Amino acid sequence: MADKKKLVEEITPMNEDFAQWYTDIVRKAELCSYSKVRGCMVFQPYGYAIWENIQHTLDKMFKDTGVQNVAMPMFIPESLLQKEKDHVEGFAPEVAWVTHGGSEKLPERLCVRPTSETLFCDHYADIIRSYRDLPKLYNQWCSVVRWEKTTRPFLRNTEFLWQEGHTAHATQEEAEERTRMMLNVYAKVCEDYLAIPVVKGKKTDREKFAGATETFTIESMMHDGKALQSGTSHNFGDGFAKAFGIQYLDENNKQQYVHQTSWGMSTRIIGAIIMVHGDDAGLKLPPKIAPTQAVIIPIAMHKEGVVEAAEALKDRLAEKFRVTLDASDKSPGWKFSEYEMRGIPVRIEIGPKDIEKNQAVLVSRTDREKTFVSLDNIEEELEKLMDKIQKQMYDAALASRESKTSSAATYEEFKKIIDEKGGFVKAMWCGDEACELKIKDDTTATSRCIPFEQEQISDKCVCCGKPAKHMVYWGKAY
Amino acid sequence: MADKKKLVEEITPMNEDFAQWYTDIVRKAELCSYSKVRGCMVFQPYGYAIWENIQHTLDKMFKDTGVQNVAMPMFIPESLLQKEKDHVEGFAPEVAWVTHGGSEKLPERLCVRPTSETLFCDHYADIIRSYRDLPKLYNQWCSVVRWEKTTRPFLRNTEFLWQEGHTAHATQEEAEERTRMMLNVYAKVCEDYLAIPVVKGKKTDREKFAGATETFTIESMMHDGKALQSGTSHNFGDGFAKAFGIQYLDENNKQQYVHQTSWGMSTRIIGAIIMVHGDDAGLKLPPKIAPTQAVIIPIAMHKEGVVEAAEALKDRLAEKFRVTLDASDKSPGWKFSEYEMRGIPVRIEIGPKDIEKNQAVLVSRTDREKTFVSLDNIEEELEKLMDKIQKQMYDAALASRESKTSSAATYEEFKKIIDEKGGFVKAMWCGDEACELKIKDDTTATSRCIPFEQEQISDKCVCCGKPAKHMVYWGKAY
Repeated sequence: MADKKKLVEEITPMNEDFAQWYTDIVRKAELCSYSKVRGCMVFQPYGYAIWENIQHTLDKMFKDTGVQNVAMPMFIPESLLQKEKDHVEGFAPEVAWVTHGGSEKLPERLCVRPTSETLFCDHYADIIRSYRDLPKLYNQWCSVVRWEKTTRPFLRNTEFLWQEGHTAHATQEEAEERTRMMLNVYAKVCEDYLAIPVVKGKKTDREKFAGATETFTIESMMHDGKALQSGTSHNFGDGFAKAFGIQYLDENNKQQYVHQTSWGMSTRIIGAIIMVHGDDAGLKLPPKIAPTQAVIIPIAMHKEGVVEAAEALKDRLAEKFRVTLDASDKSPGWKFSEYEMRGIPVRIEIGPKDIEKNQAVLVSRTDREKTFVSLDNIEEELEKLMDKIQKQMYDAALASRESKTSSAATYEEFKKIIDEKGGFVKAMWCGDEACELKIKDDTTATSRCIPFEQEQISDKCVCCGKPAKHMVYWGKAY
Repeated sequence: MADKKKLVEEITPMNEDFAQWYTDIVRKAELCSYSKVRGCMVFQPYGYAIWENIQHTLDKMFKDTGVQNVAMPMFIPESLLQKEKDHVEGFAPEVAWVTHGGSEKLPERLCVRPTSETLFCDHYADIIRSYRDLPKLYNQWCSVVRWEKTTRPFLRNTEFLWQEGHTAHATQEEAEERTRMMLNVYAKVCEDYLAIPVVKGKKTDREKFAGATETFTIESMMHDGKALQSGTSHNFGDGFAKAFGIQYLDENNKQQYVHQTSWGMSTRIIGAIIMVHGDDAGLKLPPKIAPTQAVIIPIAMHKEGVVEAAEALKDRLAEKFRVTLDASDKSPGWKFSEYEMRGIPVRIEIGPKDIEKNQAVLVSRTDREKTFVSLDNIEEELEKLMDKIQKQMYDAALASRESKTSSAATYEEFKKIIDEKGGFVKAMWCGDEACELKIKDDTTATSRCIPFEQEQISDKCVCCGKPAKHMVYWGKAY
């Protein structure tokens, strides 16, 4: 156990310094590391494998709704970025500019895409002619660049990986339906795969996407009481269509503007996985997206037949699970804490006594419970245990979020909760941006969303006392 | 048939204008289209779906050899690009430079990666300490940018999609083995999946990658007699390791430099698929990577039960194949030529008489042969037909390449073949760069590779008459 102690000591306890705990996990689990370019990360194999699993899950769900993948250029000419007024105001201050190709100065600056609405609009204007061409349901997997002042691994990077879906529809109703449909896809991935409960709602005008008429969001709650926007889906109405001239001939031979949406989820979500599930021993990964679902650790490896039995078990389980075997000469104790730190859901121990009894030991990452299972039906037992872990993780995350969710009817109460306890505060709002700004200035908390599920906390705005229009989730956020 | 004629007319016949035929197919099959940025393409859904299938095939084969995916930043600081002398000379003239982030001028210019050796080396220098850390077998899927003067869809673009593998090994032998292993992976994908026969060999020093000690290549032959480099695998020896200080402590506690490789395949290969398999009716896709393997076209759709039978057949086949149904109100004739143009390997016709006889008609894209098959075992028949098509396509491509491969013992003969017939010319070479340059100046043909399978065409260099060292494949190339 000496090994284990030493290893665990290297992760700063969460309650001592949450930011350092987070950084320690990112570094020790080898999820990502910084490169020579400020704010740009190297996604290391383990971090990237988590993203690949999220990607495959999302990609399949997208395609099931009729979405097709494409790839747009990474550059946007300055004149194209400027076509939609709100959009350029929102993004121009934080883009990287390409000014030279080889040794020649370019006739027009190109920005490296911070998001690709303008490129999709330009392409849609080219290819959409008739109602028969609609809807267009495109998505791309790529990286985007935003020149951030301060950066943190996964949470805020100059360059990050994401997907961005961009759709064009004949009617506003269809666009609205698609906006909600994709928000529900994100919510499902978070809840059913990442074991992260989310609050679904609408952003206030102040917090919505540059150029959108409506932004829907899913918000999740971290261990330290801060919220994290985990996926957004935007309805653009026909604003971009008018700016870019995207028109189609309808069934009655009349020119109409299309209605558009966009929606994205990024590698930020890996930050959420760390901060929703992790503990002082390290990362904790939901079985459904863990790159390694179970690691086999042979016990008393020098004894005859142990390594062979472990290898045979690995080959057998590999047919159904993502499983690895560590037959290196490191001690079992070192391996136990190493794979715990890496958040592998299940550890499988097999030693001479187990082989004799035709069994193996399953150890859960969540509650460290040991189960002795017969090798005859280890597949079923492992499946069952993983389902249990997936559920335990969701339940624990939900309980944690509930313990961090409060209501406030008065401003005093509101400020006290934000200041002392953090988390989500449900409170009424008059709909006036001035109150949002005052709350942000007084507390640094922002409106996270106007949840679809409304409650009546009081009938007055928590800030100004005027009649309330909405119940809002407020909180400090990443 | 009026519909069909009209459609086919829109594709310029190959023999009339090969370049226009190529462009027509790219445009009509909606593979890609140009964007507002010079030389940057939009990969449309159909073109991107072909790439996705190639990607999944390659990715699985990479992972089977132990390769792990990562993601590196897209930017390289100028000072990092300059660390390896040959490398910077090869790439600096054609990179895009980022000079500003938001409104601020950057302290150092960043180039958009033209390839990522320097980034991988920088990361490897950070993380490799001991022989226990080796080998590192990393790959990334991304886009890269090279500021090309003239561009052509898929073949030469300012930005293109690719994968780049980068590995670090303890010994030169291991690096050499990996270089060859990955070349063999590319050859296998080309031959077994894309139905494109390749010549495997080594590039001459003049043609090798900037910074490599050895470049291996697979070369394929297009319909118009021009060669296309279809995948390359580079051995760097310890050149980059010395430039970047990538050292490890060996088993005897001695510092050693690592030995490195890199290897890449890009969306260029889609250009090869078009130009190896296509015909005057359009694209022809190998079943193994076709986004749609079979399209069902109902005949006499107004008759009761036809659409329902077609839908039932689609649902049934969709369990095993990538299959679509076109039940639109367009005429069967229009649909036949449309899907032929899109290169879908098999068309399935089903009409009232077929339903009566419990059958469907399979029509092959390669020889247009019709087969009437019972619905009872249509899965097996479709599978068999696709295997046949895959083999027919490979055989036809091989026969075409062989008809375009000549040998030349004298320079007169050599020039005449290059000039009149084109294709590959096998001829001896003294090993002197001066002869390569003279051949290029005289004929525009370049040395494609020194094939692993050598033949003795004569004992003298085809150009200067001095004693020959190697037999070389020469040809004009894309």
